Amino acid sequence: MSELKNLAQSVQKALEELFERTTIPSQVKEAMWYSVSAGGKRLRPALMLLFCRAFGGQDADAMPYACAMEMIHTYSLIHDDLPAMDNDDLRRGRPTCHKVYGEGMALLAGDGLLNFAYETMISAAKQSPVRGIRAMDEIACGAGVTGMIAGQCMDLSNERGNADYATEDVHRAKTGAMIRAACTAGAILGGADEEGIAAAACYGEKLGLAFQITDDILDVTGDEAKLGKPIGSDERNEKQTYVGLYGLEKARELAAQVTAEAIEALAAIDGDTQVLSSIAQSMLEREA
Amino acid sequence: MSELKNLAQSVQKALEELFERTTIPSQVKEAMWYSVSAGGKRLRPALMLLFCRAFGGQDADAMPYACAMEMIHTYSLIHDDLPAMDNDDLRRGRPTCHKVYGEGMALLAGDGLLNFAYETMISAAKQSPVRGIRAMDEIACGAGVTGMIAGQCMDLSNERGNADYATEDVHRAKTGAMIRAACTAGAILGGADEEGIAAAACYGEKLGLAFQITDDILDVTGDEAKLGKPIGSDERNEKQTYVGLYGLEKARELAAQVTAEAIEALAAIDGDTQVLSSIAQSMLEREA
Repeated sequence: MSELKNLAQSVQKALEELFERTTIPSQVKEAMWYSVSAGGKRLRPALMLLFCRAFGGQDADAMPYACAMEMIHTYSLIHDDLPAMDNDDLRRGRPTCHKVYGEGMALLAGDGLLNFAYETMISAAKQSPVRGIRAMDEIACGAGVTGMIAGQCMDLSNERGNADYATEDVHRAKTGAMIRAACTAGAILGGADEEGIAAAACYGEKLGLAFQITDDILDVTGDEAKLGKPIGSDERNEKQTYVGLYGLEKARELAAQVTAEAIEALAAIDGDTQVLSSIAQSMLEREA
Repeated sequence: MSELKNLAQSVQKALEELFERTTIPSQVKEAMWYSVSAGGKRLRPALMLLFCRAFGGQDADAMPYACAMEMIHTYSLIHDDLPAMDNDDLRRGRPTCHKVYGEGMALLAGDGLLNFAYETMISAAKQSPVRGIRAMDEIACGAGVTGMIAGQCMDLSNERGNADYATEDVHRAKTGAMIRAACTAGAILGGADEEGIAAAACYGEKLGLAFQITDDILDVTGDEAKLGKPIGSDERNEKQTYVGLYGLEKARELAAQVTAEAIEALAAIDGDTQVLSSIAQSMLEREA
């Protein structure tokens, strides 16, 4: 989808400018940039910018928060890949951060990205304190110990056999909370009313669920070259997945159903939601 | 000093309430609380509360930020102690977080504390957006890739022989930036004008420097039982220190001089700065 590519390029450019104008010790800056510039789909910042637009906001209103969102996403990947967690050597087809820069520097690069995300948002919030604080609140809760970090913790505890959290709960926290936050924060920064914010939240929740189910399906049926990572890792790690839980066919049905619900939620929004609708559809059909 | 003990208790109580009312998966919550409740002097939150008071603010105005400051400090210790960094087994006389909960959970506990610190501040900033954002800005910059994380990175690079950052620069970033931020954020939350904020910054910078020089001295002359950690680790790790740089006697003189400068900076403040003055003096004379 060309609009998603345009948005990814805008985010990349904004991230470059942010790194260029900040004085960071060279080793950690290089490690941070290595991971954050590796890219991927830039789904979260794109969702944020699109919801901001849908409620009449300018890209500039949401861009610092979109960059922060991507930095938080990247920090979580760097820490997740560490030997103490998933111990992955490859990410997005390249060696992981700690394989290139060492574990200590990768740890600091992750910490640095998380904190830099907040520095960036706090600085932007000076322009529009009330909306800024509310958007940061959504993002911080999505990223935190009741959101993404909670999900990582549940995942780790399940893997170690210390707990038995349900697949749905793990995914809702680990992946869903940040996708939802990208949507709600974008709506807030664009000036949405409460009904609009609720519609964004609903779309985000359903999309996050569809995204995770599709991830699980691709880990079974995907093409390693397209994915840029080995398939079958969930089964090897004895991870609970939607495919494991419901079987492949039912998992596909479920993904299609929640995608349709995500698209339905957009009906409550007056502005242009065509690209958001296409994103939901294409997430369902993606191969990587 | 009894007032410092009172302040430490207030902070402990506020942290307890914060953890009690937040739903966090039990394993990571336990690991976070294990480290954050271990206490120590609570110097940073105490400084914040005292500067807030000195400019006429209430403790309640600064308490969420003081808790956040302590959580950020604790996260940095947990990550610093990990095998990928300093690989320390003891902290404050107890086994380090990763020795008790494993490396993966300690990593997440650190991430969780850093993010929870921002969640706590952002939530508090809703009450007083302009001051809140400015205080968060000071804290985020102090904690980040131009502050504390920069210092940790310079430290790590020096140890690995990849760089040769000057002792002063490392310490100013690693320890000084957060102590300075505690002071300036406290002043901002208490309603200080620009002159007051500058005085708080000056006190914080000098105190941070005195604190680090004294730390270096204690690593040579200290009592392991009182410190709760082995001495001589700087020399073993070939770390640049003020003692190594200037010798013991000159390092002591330097600590006394910057302490006097910290106390002088308080003269510009109309409110009660007696305890802040005593803290500076007692930091110089501390044994742990």
